Amino acid sequence: MNVHDLTTPALLVDAHALTANLADMAAALPGPRCRPHVKAHKTTALAKLQARHHPGFTVATVREAEGMAAAGLGDDLLLANEVLDARRLGALDARITVAIDSPETLQAAVAGGVREVVIDVNVGLPRCGIAPERAGALADAARAAGLEVRGVMGYEGHLMLVPDEAEKAKYTEECMAKLLAAHADVGGELISGGGTGTYRTNKWVTEVQAGSYALMDTAYTKAGLPFRQALTVLATVISVSEGWAVADVGLKALGMDHGNPTIPGAQVWFCSDEHTTFAPEQPVAVGDRIRVLPAHVDPTVALHERMHLVDGDEVIDTWAVDLRGW
Amino acid sequence: MNVHDLTTPALLVDAHALTANLADMAAALPGPRCRPHVKAHKTTALAKLQARHHPGFTVATVREAEGMAAAGLGDDLLLANEVLDARRLGALDARITVAIDSPETLQAAVAGGVREVVIDVNVGLPRCGIAPERAGALADAARAAGLEVRGVMGYEGHLMLVPDEAEKAKYTEECMAKLLAAHADVGGELISGGGTGTYRTNKWVTEVQAGSYALMDTAYTKAGLPFRQALTVLATVISVSEGWAVADVGLKALGMDHGNPTIPGAQVWFCSDEHTTFAPEQPVAVGDRIRVLPAHVDPTVALHERMHLVDGDEVIDTWAVDLRGW
Repeated sequence: MNVHDLTTPALLVDAHALTANLADMAAALPGPRCRPHVKAHKTTALAKLQARHHPGFTVATVREAEGMAAAGLGDDLLLANEVLDARRLGALDARITVAIDSPETLQAAVAGGVREVVIDVNVGLPRCGIAPERAGALADAARAAGLEVRGVMGYEGHLMLVPDEAEKAKYTEECMAKLLAAHADVGGELISGGGTGTYRTNKWVTEVQAGSYALMDTAYTKAGLPFRQALTVLATVISVSEGWAVADVGLKALGMDHGNPTIPGAQVWFCSDEHTTFAPEQPVAVGDRIRVLPAHVDPTVALHERMHLVDGDEVIDTWAVDLRGW
Repeated sequence: MNVHDLTTPALLVDAHALTANLADMAAALPGPRCRPHVKAHKTTALAKLQARHHPGFTVATVREAEGMAAAGLGDDLLLANEVLDARRLGALDARITVAIDSPETLQAAVAGGVREVVIDVNVGLPRCGIAPERAGALADAARAAGLEVRGVMGYEGHLMLVPDEAEKAKYTEECMAKLLAAHADVGGELISGGGTGTYRTNKWVTEVQAGSYALMDTAYTKAGLPFRQALTVLATVISVSEGWAVADVGLKALGMDHGNPTIPGAQVWFCSDEHTTFAPEQPVAVGDRIRVLPAHVDPTVALHERMHLVDGDEVIDTWAVDLRGW
């Protein structure tokens, strides 16, 4: 099939860019050194390619854990997020480890029948995570409640886009000092953290939870990371006026939290529900197909039912985005 | 069922607010004076309530037309958007009218087996629509190609949030003068346009394409419109730290193009994929359920598989958001 036969808007994944990204990460962080995060692509077909290189996965939602288990990718799933209802996790035929950062999330793991946890430690990003000095006590309580404590995790998400490498390394070391201090109290084999933005920088974790590297983001590309932008949204030009044109991709096909998408060779003016109005540098015609770069890949993928693997204009596979929802 | 039994994040629709909104619009623009736009809620169960008052509907995508037809709501569907592949429309067991603004979209309607069109006229919003002075010629070409031309449409979307009523009326009149001039050349019974923001202002159209009034938006509420905010996202507090807390609703549960959501009694700091970090004015506890107001309803709904109709904390119905995708 040719991309021109696809209904638009449609997610396209460049096969060469994806293959190169997966190979580059596998070379940099082979095997268990990388625990790919599936929240970035929500697609088990893509995760199966990652599973050739890496034995475990990171997930953000119960639904993602369920879908990965159902796809036979449940050998070692880390739900790197807090969960108050873990019953669906305990029922899975998979190895599930869940993050906890409070007595309530500890109790939820026990009540849900989860057997393994990591202690989520706040390393500076104001989000989830227990204060480092309290991590040991939570681990003790978890073990007392019959849980296996596999170690710690901490996400330095606020450092992912620091442009200067030396500065990023300094801040990452400060964050990881907190995680290592917590780990000294907690124990366990896992020190999990990091992401695509710090995959070369973070030398302190035992595994990096990288997600964006597979499909890549405009923001990460600008930050000088070596991975290639593999994801675009295919759109059709549906209207041309004097001075602007309109493509059939809008707010419901694009993650907008990082702002407007990019159209090579054009200035994007604004997006509506199902439209992007843009000023092309060269004339375009009604019916033209164009490729739009979303500003943020993760929430873009969450809006689509499927993604098409392409080699140039040839569609070589179509994958269900089968990990959407909660 | 109680809302506390729902998996979060979950879309909630307040039954009283929804009922009042539908009744208020039906009183202001009874019968065919309003052609409700389903893109705002993408839910045929909700459209069935609107169909008690209004005979026709507006849709934005081919998928929405298909879903409405399948739900028995296809008596008079206006696809108020340009389409280059109309084959799925022509195959529907429904009355389909499609907007055209170019020879290419005219040909697509013919090729797809669509029989009725409206001429989409640009009235000032730089998006789709033919220049008013060229509308008559396009209508002639459409009739020559065997199509029925039902009239014109024009959307003054750039005026929806003008705060001053007199100013909005003046600008709307200017826009509608263009649409009426085009209509004089085009003919037909339909002069379609407007939206929730101009439903009281626009006295020139024969029907208003209002969508947001049913569930309502933060932005429209601030603009002084009388409808009530019916839609919230139910979330669970999953982590509490000194100075902030985290709810399990993020970029994949919220339309972000209008910015961060609102949490009553709290300051929202930022959203991540599956988290909102906020500073509550009163202490919250892990496990608390909170209601989050998305900044933009339409793209929020597009991220959810279902919405729950609630009366206080009681879930009285659950509706599939069955018009998602393309």
